[in-house]
Amino acid sequence: MHIMEKYSPEHDDPSFASIRTFMRLPNIRSLGDDVDFAIVGLPFDTGSSGRIGSRFAPEAIRSASVSLGSYNIGLGISIFDHLGGVDYGDVKVVPGFIEESLKAISDTLSLIHQTNTVPIGIGGDHSVVLGELRAAAQKYGPLGLVLFDSHHDCWDSYQGHKYFHSTIFRRAIDENLIDLSHSIMCGLRGNVYSLRSWSYPTQLGVYSIPTLVMRQIGMKQTCEEIVNRVGNVPVFLSFDMDFIDPAYAPGVGTPEIGGFTTWEALELLRGIRELDIKAADLVEVIPVYDNSQLTSITAANIIFEMLSLLAWRKSSRNG
Amino acid sequence: MHIMEKYSPEHDDPSFASIRTFMRLPNIRSLGDDVDFAIVGLPFDTGSSGRIGSRFAPEAIRSASVSLGSYNIGLGISIFDHLGGVDYGDVKVVPGFIEESLKAISDTLSLIHQTNTVPIGIGGDHSVVLGELRAAAQKYGPLGLVLFDSHHDCWDSYQGHKYFHSTIFRRAIDENLIDLSHSIMCGLRGNVYSLRSWSYPTQLGVYSIPTLVMRQIGMKQTCEEIVNRVGNVPVFLSFDMDFIDPAYAPGVGTPEIGGFTTWEALELLRGIRELDIKAADLVEVIPVYDNSQLTSITAANIIFEMLSLLAWRKSSRNG
Amino acid sequence: MHIMEKYSPEHDDPSFASIRTFMRLPNIRSLGDDVDFAIVGLPFDTGSSGRIGSRFAPEAIRSASVSLGSYNIGLGISIFDHLGGVDYGDVKVVPGFIEESLKAISDTLSLIHQTNTVPIGIGGDHSVVLGELRAAAQKYGPLGLVLFDSHHDCWDSYQGHKYFHSTIFRRAIDENLIDLSHSIMCGLRGNVYSLRSWSYPTQLGVYSIPTLVMRQIGMKQTCEEIVNRVGNVPVFLSFDMDFIDPAYAPGVGTPEIGGFTTWEALELLRGIRELDIKAADLVEVIPVYDNSQLTSITAANIIFEMLSLLAWRKSSRNG
Amino acid sequence: MHIMEKYSPEHDDPSFASIRTFMRLPNIRSLGDDVDFAIVGLPFDTGSSGRIGSRFAPEAIRSASVSLGSYNIGLGISIFDHLGGVDYGDVKVVPGFIEESLKAISDTLSLIHQTNTVPIGIGGDHSVVLGELRAAAQKYGPLGLVLFDSHHDCWDSYQGHKYFHSTIFRRAIDENLIDLSHSIMCGLRGNVYSLRSWSYPTQLGVYSIPTLVMRQIGMKQTCEEIVNRVGNVPVFLSFDMDFIDPAYAPGVGTPEIGGFTTWEALELLRGIRELDIKAADLVEVIPVYDNSQLTSITAANIIFEMLSLLAWRKSSRNG
Amino acid sequence: MHIMEKYSPEHDDPSFASIRTFMRLPNIRSLGDDVDFAIVGLPFDTGSSGRIGSRFAPEAIRSASVSLGSYNIGLGISIFDHLGGVDYGDVKVVPGFIEESLKAISDTLSLIHQTNTVPIGIGGDHSVVLGELRAAAQKYGPLGLVLFDSHHDCWDSYQGHKYFHSTIFRRAIDENLIDLSHSIMCGLRGNVYSLRSWSYPTQLGVYSIPTLVMRQIGMKQTCEEIVNRVGNVPVFLSFDMDFIDPAYAPGVGTPEIGGFTTWEALELLRGIRELDIKAADLVEVIPVYDNSQLTSITAANIIFEMLSLLAWRKSSRNG
Amino acid sequence: MHIMEKYSPEHDDPSFASIRTFMRLPNIRSLGDDVDFAIVGLPFDTGSSGRIGSRFAPEAIRSASVSLGSYNIGLGISIFDHLGGVDYGDVKVVPGFIEESLKAISDTLSLIHQTNTVPIGIGGDHSVVLGELRAAAQKYGPLGLVLFDSHHDCWDSYQGHKYFHSTIFRRAIDENLIDLSHSIMCGLRGNVYSLRSWSYPTQLGVYSIPTLVMRQIGMKQTCEEIVNRVGNVPVFLSFDMDFIDPAYAPGVGTPEIGGFTTWEALELLRGIRELDIKAADLVEVIPVYDNSQLTSITAANIIFEMLSLLAWRKSSRNG
Repeated sequence: MHIMEKYSPEHDDPSFASIRTFMRLPNIRSLGDDVDFAIVGLPFDTGSSGRIGSRFAPEAIRSASVSLGSYNIGLGISIFDHLGGVDYGDVKVVPGFIEESLKAISDTLSLIHQTNTVPIGIGGDHSVVLGELRAAAQKYGPLGLVLFDSHHDCWDSYQGHKYFHSTIFRRAIDENLIDLSHSIMCGLRGNVYSLRSWSYPTQLGVYSIPTLVMRQIGMKQTCEEIVNRVGNVPVFLSFDMDFIDPAYAPGVGTPEIGGFTTWEALELLRGIRELDIKAADLVEVIPVYDNSQLTSITAANIIFEMLSLLAWRKSSRNG
Repeated sequence: MHIMEKYSPEHDDPSFASIRTFMRLPNIRSLGDDVDFAIVGLPFDTGSSGRIGSRFAPEAIRSASVSLGSYNIGLGISIFDHLGGVDYGDVKVVPGFIEESLKAISDTLSLIHQTNTVPIGIGGDHSVVLGELRAAAQKYGPLGLVLFDSHHDCWDSYQGHKYFHSTIFRRAIDENLIDLSHSIMCGLRGNVYSLRSWSYPTQLGVYSIPTLVMRQIGMKQTCEEIVNRVGNVPVFLSFDMDFIDPAYAPGVGTPEIGGFTTWEALELLRGIRELDIKAADLVEVIPVYDNSQLTSITAANIIFEMLSLLAWRKSSRNG
Repeated sequence: MHIMEKYSPEHDDPSFASIRTFMRLPNIRSLGDDVDFAIVGLPFDTGSSGRIGSRFAPEAIRSASVSLGSYNIGLGISIFDHLGGVDYGDVKVVPGFIEESLKAISDTLSLIHQTNTVPIGIGGDHSVVLGELRAAAQKYGPLGLVLFDSHHDCWDSYQGHKYFHSTIFRRAIDENLIDLSHSIMCGLRGNVYSLRSWSYPTQLGVYSIPTLVMRQIGMKQTCEEIVNRVGNVPVFLSFDMDFIDPAYAPGVGTPEIGGFTTWEALELLRGIRELDIKAADLVEVIPVYDNSQLTSITAANIIFEMLSLLAWRKSSRNG
Repeated sequence: MHIMEKYSPEHDDPSFASIRTFMRLPNIRSLGDDVDFAIVGLPFDTGSSGRIGSRFAPEAIRSASVSLGSYNIGLGISIFDHLGGVDYGDVKVVPGFIEESLKAISDTLSLIHQTNTVPIGIGGDHSVVLGELRAAAQKYGPLGLVLFDSHHDCWDSYQGHKYFHSTIFRRAIDENLIDLSHSIMCGLRGNVYSLRSWSYPTQLGVYSIPTLVMRQIGMKQTCEEIVNRVGNVPVFLSFDMDFIDPAYAPGVGTPEIGGFTTWEALELLRGIRELDIKAADLVEVIPVYDNSQLTSITAANIIFEMLSLLAWRKSSRNG
Repeated sequence: MHIMEKYSPEHDDPSFASIRTFMRLPNIRSLGDDVDFAIVGLPFDTGSSGRIGSRFAPEAIRSASVSLGSYNIGLGISIFDHLGGVDYGDVKVVPGFIEESLKAISDTLSLIHQTNTVPIGIGGDHSVVLGELRAAAQKYGPLGLVLFDSHHDCWDSYQGHKYFHSTIFRRAIDENLIDLSHSIMCGLRGNVYSLRSWSYPTQLGVYSIPTLVMRQIGMKQTCEEIVNRVGNVPVFLSFDMDFIDPAYAPGVGTPEIGGFTTWEALELLRGIRELDIKAADLVEVIPVYDNSQLTSITAANIIFEMLSLLAWRKSSRNG
Repeated sequence: MHIMEKYSPEHDDPSFASIRTFMRLPNIRSLGDDVDFAIVGLPFDTGSSGRIGSRFAPEAIRSASVSLGSYNIGLGISIFDHLGGVDYGDVKVVPGFIEESLKAISDTLSLIHQTNTVPIGIGGDHSVVLGELRAAAQKYGPLGLVLFDSHHDCWDSYQGHKYFHSTIFRRAIDENLIDLSHSIMCGLRGNVYSLRSWSYPTQLGVYSIPTLVMRQIGMKQTCEEIVNRVGNVPVFLSFDMDFIDPAYAPGVGTPEIGGFTTWEALELLRGIRELDIKAADLVEVIPVYDNSQLTSITAANIIFEMLSLLAWRKSSRNG
């Protein structure tokens, strides 16, 4: 499998040595047939309404990724037995200019989708997802959205503006990028502005399992609800780091107490392994608020779980 | 409801802008009829026997409060539909002089109680509670104490001195400020000096559910025990931040491992919504030991839950 | 002088108590005749090309200001004997939208200039200066600019965009807000992109004393050059925190080694006391990169020196 | 019991005063008959493959220990009623030279074992355990190993070298220091290099309950499995701090998400109180990555629980 | 010189090993004839009006001292060729109670003075100096004070109270502990409350060389002025860490910008080697505000220079 | 000059985007004729006797380098007009095994020297210099050493071992890698173990200008002494980050107060531009002790100055 060797990480050096790409994957942009996924940095944070600085997240998560191994205990799979991948580098965003940056994201990811490669975006604030969804929907049509997040990001506008990290999923719905009947939002919580704003997802037709309900039904049943809701449609999986409790992930834009442990996050991700993921992202990590790399290490592991989902599905289809 | 408008927060600015009052409430000291609660800083930390620096907690918690919304998902209530409030500023304590400072606290809070406003104190170390209890008892007589804390603070003296954060509830009992038969301490834990000192609450007639027992009976039954014990008497609710596990609240004076998650804290507070709270406080946050504002954000949320309890009770009485 | 009492700080509380306004000045927006200066927060950082987060600088600098006294040893003057002032709060900027935010800044500051009050802006990144200059020039015509900065911020564009913190003084020149023949830039240094870009100020007609030259001629002669160059025209004084060496001010956007000590900064500011300052700002502090408040404390002191310059000139005119 | 007084801590001073020995125990090396345990610093970290710096852990954990009391609530025992102990100081390791350092550790601990004193080692990285096991096995023959760790440390070599923190238990097995039939590894997790490397313990004959299984069967049953497996043989108890989740213990060498809470750790340790512990250690704390002493405080508490196990067993035998 | 061996540090271990006493000196309290100096921790910080936490300074400075060597390049002297010394441990202060703590300090230091041993106090905030001066004056009568400090600490009272870190030298003058005609204060600076308060030292008869003057005359002439002023009287040398610029010493109670470099501090201390120092202290270090031990390392070096002064004088007298 | 384009950095992306190589240079190992220099990471820190962790320095310094421009104001030169360069990545060192690692360093650098490329090593602790010198001397014979360092690193052994960061230049002398008559050590300072150890360089025949002397003669004359001493021989330039004062570079292994400012470092480096540098390194940065990247940014700038020296000399030879 010589092509795979080209597109898998090298682990000869000690974990603290070498140029930091994600899991030491080759940093190339020409995607061969055996490139199943591409890690893509999206260092854009102009959409942030509170803390800011996720522009440095791709660097920090790449740095934290170097000690990752390739075997997933929970799924019983060695990911590079099934997948080839690259670190594509970063999209050339323009700080301060959201619409232009969304276009840059969309254009770049479209190139990746053309080769049937799954892009895994590393944000950036959550506003980047609009660019990602545009590229994915151009290829697949409206996608089933699976969102892990403590906020729904479905406001209509922020201070009179349409494009912002808290309005981004409403924009995606406006643009018909999301297949509402096969989408789900998990983990909404926090104290919020009003009952009306809290209900935006419902008003827009997005099914939501807030944290309160997840705590009642447990992780396993939550997974079942996700899988049932989404079914077999092409999926966009978006993971906002503030879904995790800030004790486990302090370096995020809008920390919300009462969140999930990393163990619960692992259970949830492994529990939706049957989904047909076409694109994914991990957003809202702000390294300068992190603590001993805790958030970045968690982020790198979450991305590893995303890759494992791809590997598991490919393996189970081929098996 | 134009008076309410005067006593509710302004949210026009982005969360990172404006002078920091608690939730952007008006910073005024003349309390009109519609002022249901007053946030009061109690920046006194001379009572600390270990880490010190809670004098900066009121500032830090006000800063963290600016991103709070006003709708409580768990209780289904928008607090400023029912409550008016102010940020009263800080009591003028005298660092280094505990008795004089307790008097200043008591004098100031008495003024607040006179207008039937509920003072919510932001410590400071736990010694401030004696000043608060004196003011409350002057108005209501001995109160039912509901304490969330990993320490009972019932020592008789510390190095020969009577007034200290670890002796403060014994002083309150000595002064007959607490209605022992309707009081309860929740969450005691840690390794301690002796069986004898561990049993001080029992010796003094205070009912206690230590952490070990809370873990066995769960949060829901703990709430029931609290409500049953306390009943309908006027309540002083005191929340020592070290009740929360230090992973979730590292910035405290005497961290004790094996504590509660923020989710459990939310469950507990929402579960005692029927109590008749006349005064409350949150103490022992030390910002300089905090991590990415985690402790201060948690503290701001706990105070928001306290306000929600006031709103829920007022709403249910009016309803 | 009862009006002055209204517009000077209150120092009864310990330094760690009370709501944080700058030097505890009253937080009001109606400017009486005796209001000589207004502190104005400009929490806008969308113009940042590297590190970001100066949106939190106004809060941090207000917090650090509470221990400032009012007597300036170097100038032998007690500032509130001569000046009344307020903390105006923050301009309502729109994160992510620079042109709209510049307009908000300009509109607000124009109101302040109308009452002949000197606005002292607390950035934000350096892009805010364009809004400030527009307001000042509307009142006074093109101003003499005195800039302390390690960068000239005179690029024509950044990634194709005109408005950014590194292009901002070229925009000001384009808009004829600066009186080139009475302006000066002090302290340029760092390694730069090219000889051509390094020479932008000269190309635009702005006189510059780079760090290399300042080190050769000393602080005293630098002051003389500034005063000679600027003369008696209305002055805008802009202080970019990265002028100071990052050992003394680590919490800045683009730290440049080989900079000035705080003592040298004090010497420079006191040495230009004869200037007729109509507006001033301090920009580019990023608290989350700060170390034990070092940068914020320095910033608060620099602003105090700016106020002292106003007091000295007023005193010397009246004397 | 005057001898006991000599070997128990002094608590007259405030917790922040005095020279830092563990729990203020006397710092002596001549072990009398009543010395049941000796705290021994093992500041060796040359075996670290990723983060490094546990050489400073003994100092940090001693510092954090000063606020420990002596009564264990969970076990209902006051440890110094039953035990005398000393802080032996540190073994004189040679940074950079693992085999020489292991010999120094082994030689020193052998002296301690000669007086039937239980050494409690404070690492250092996990490689120190080989020196400890050699000394213990010299006295007791192969020991039952109880390991709490997220890694098995059973690699054969690292970059061609035999002695390293990730190979150390294979070395111990090679040297016949471990009684395989009475040993157990608890808590393995993380993403790993391969199925083959994940299975090393099984291949070597060591019974393992990985985290996944522990989560299914719970803490109580895990304790039963440990006690059943180990039985009455002399035990070496090794606690790698990365067993605890990094939210609770960020300052470790190789943080693995999805770990255990401190409460669970307390339950586990108290649940194996019947074991006959002859030596123990706590390893892999790196203070410079810690957060507000959280990891060191947890470490000090874990060591206190180890001492409590000794006290409980001695008490129950004598009782 | 076998006695000296008993009272000099042991350097066999690596610098990161062993129990932390100052420079690894023996931790004993019985002072033999050859004990020339005793390091004494004074962990009292109740006198702090701003930041607080110097109670942890003795621990931090002991920790930082372990890498100190014994040869002073600047003075050309190996201190333990001439001096024997011990680490006496800490005085048992009572947090929250200043008068009682000052008495404890005074009582303990009197014992040390009785054996003609020079106590070197490690604060704590500056209020501890009153206890130290009382003990010294009891032995030597009023002493020549040499103070390096950015504040004069000569206020009459603070919020109506006489004993506080900012009033402490006025108290010492009131109690006739200072020989005014042979005393000097160096380095006063900062913005202050008023001309009147700035002039307190002069009003009280204490000679002062403020920072402004020191900058004009240079370090060398400052030393000459100190030596001339003080002459041959018994000296108390007090070094407040905020004398050093906060870039070099961020972990202090009241940082004042525009201060001295560590190199200048070394020059000053070495330049006054002829003085007859009978007692000394270093105060106002707050470790929790420190940065990578920078302040504590500097403090340990300053204390080493103090010891070098003792060694130089003893050597030059014996030579 | 199309080859040059291949070997110079690309600056299209914002400074916070893209994979981190030094100055965004291409990460390749085949060195064409136009490759004048190669940045080489040497992440080895087993030679550290105190703080440890410089294994992460190459990553941190690469990260900090991304905002460097290419024009050196002080030397008036744009470095990539004259030089081509690559980021070679890291040498595959073996943590814990110094002799093997030194061999790996030497072998790799020999390959680089073969193409007449100047290797610029990024340590790692100072022990790496032995591997670098072996490779350089193999090519050029004994080199003139120019060392900026606060320690001479000329001990004979450390705890009986020959290879350690404090013994490394004695080893180099033993191996005849240094041309003693054309070498110089600048900046020695600190308190040291003895007069004898302080004099090791002199005893070994190495000329030294300690900090004390540099302060007396100034930077300019120091440069002259260096240039005079070294002359035209092939030079190895070694820069230990602790030469810089820890206020400016806190993240180092053994901070020594009383050091040099970054401005002075720039003056020194630019002042020796005539030297014929064949190899260079920057060592002893420990990122985990750094403050807001201050040390890493300084390190990146120092390396940029080294490159500028190469460019200046090449330019002046070609000119």
